[in-house]
Amino acid sequence: MELVQRNQCFNGEQRIYQFDSESLKSSTRFGIFLPAEALQGQVCPALFYLAGLTCTEETFAIKAHAQRLAAQLGLILISPDTSPRGDSVAKGDHWDIGQGAGFYINATEQPWAEHYQMERFISDELYALVQAEFAVLADAIGIFGHSMGGHGALTLALKHPDKFKSVSAFAPICAPSQCPWGEKAFGQYLGVNQGFWQAHDATALVAVKGALFKEILIDQGLDDQFYSQLNPALFQQACDSVGQALTLREHAGYDHGYYFIQTFMDDHLQFHAVQLQA
Amino acid sequence: MELVQRNQCFNGEQRIYQFDSESLKSSTRFGIFLPAEALQGQVCPALFYLAGLTCTEETFAIKAHAQRLAAQLGLILISPDTSPRGDSVAKGDHWDIGQGAGFYINATEQPWAEHYQMERFISDELYALVQAEFAVLADAIGIFGHSMGGHGALTLALKHPDKFKSVSAFAPICAPSQCPWGEKAFGQYLGVNQGFWQAHDATALVAVKGALFKEILIDQGLDDQFYSQLNPALFQQACDSVGQALTLREHAGYDHGYYFIQTFMDDHLQFHAVQLQA
Repeated sequence: MELVQRNQCFNGEQRIYQFDSESLKSSTRFGIFLPAEALQGQVCPALFYLAGLTCTEETFAIKAHAQRLAAQLGLILISPDTSPRGDSVAKGDHWDIGQGAGFYINATEQPWAEHYQMERFISDELYALVQAEFAVLADAIGIFGHSMGGHGALTLALKHPDKFKSVSAFAPICAPSQCPWGEKAFGQYLGVNQGFWQAHDATALVAVKGALFKEILIDQGLDDQFYSQLNPALFQQACDSVGQALTLREHAGYDHGYYFIQTFMDDHLQFHAVQLQA
Repeated sequence: MELVQRNQCFNGEQRIYQFDSESLKSSTRFGIFLPAEALQGQVCPALFYLAGLTCTEETFAIKAHAQRLAAQLGLILISPDTSPRGDSVAKGDHWDIGQGAGFYINATEQPWAEHYQMERFISDELYALVQAEFAVLADAIGIFGHSMGGHGALTLALKHPDKFKSVSAFAPICAPSQCPWGEKAFGQYLGVNQGFWQAHDATALVAVKGALFKEILIDQGLDDQFYSQLNPALFQQACDSVGQALTLREHAGYDHGYYFIQTFMDDHLQFHAVQLQA
């Protein structure tokens, strides 16, 4: 694991690491914010942040404005890249598929299956690595994300509630089986049999898994230019049907970007800090 | 004046405008954060933020993490581009001169003089424009900046204390006449006669102007990779010699970038809010 960049920030450190991933069969990078306590070896709760289409491991650190409160709360923040990368890794025909668009699932189809193993990468490999390398408090790891990464956060939490103790999302793709982004990605990564898609669709998953979390928090802008891809109402209905508590906040005037995310970032960090300390 | 981008943010709006500048003889862009009060027409104090080498009108809005507290304090934030731009505008041989490196002075030499009129652009043209177009509180405009923009903030405030009522800087180039960046830029923009440089050098200026401000605030990282270009001690000496109160805070471990800036951003906003409301 190579330290690529290190910047002191709110008395902690924002870092970028690079390493050869076994799951992705490629070199990959992740960002990590370590509050002062973690630098001193004191174990801290940690949050995985999964970013959206076209983003990288740097997007969150630069644009989400999370470090100030994470430093105060003593939270570690981990921000992986959004797909495998590199010349030997299959590319897509557009920004909604392939590199920068891994969708946090394990691809079974060609040409994707060899490298696009993002679920395994996040929830096994990187999950174990950060616990081995940093002062992460056991049983106090949460997950959140944005858009494609909101889908990732919801589905990985629902699939691995033993690993992720709290979950929230900004403008997540709530029902990828029922929107163009998800239909394209799932069709290519998982194949045309839509029966296989349901295990990776938050709305379908929560209906099967039931009420796993004390509460799920979602913020959604009502001027979101991608609103038709997101379907928060379908997720709300599915949560209601199984008694999963969901706080879905819809905000007039906010769009899909990081100015929306930074506005509600503090609320998400507080939400996770409370749940992870409980 | 054309609205290029508008994003709701902390109940206010982060916007980018474009217009044809008379001073720069080119189209130019600036960013502006308008807190909710300003959107409702209530006049608010305003702060100009001048960015550093290679930056644009977007850098501050994305990386400086200022909107949260500005929204709370009811501060308008204005972030101009760092030079004239365009195919008809002279380019430099490197990122420290020419486009992205206007140094906030009025060039007198060729090929720069036609477009590189950044002092006039900021302190006359844009200064008047934002007051005409937005709910800016008269006599409550401050200025701050980073690196080259810290030099810009200090010098424009010292030259125009009637216009800028408060001033602070992050890692400013304090004595451009005495560092490689400044020697190159001043030599090309103002000519080889160093006598002309002194009117645009914060350390030389404060010695002549005397104590114009109740206090000047500077934050400086001690792991700054460009520390040798910045000379805060020379500025401190010059301030001391004329009784200009200067709070120069030196921070172990911090570098020259926006992770440093975001760490101390709130302190600067609070500093200006107090001075502008006084």
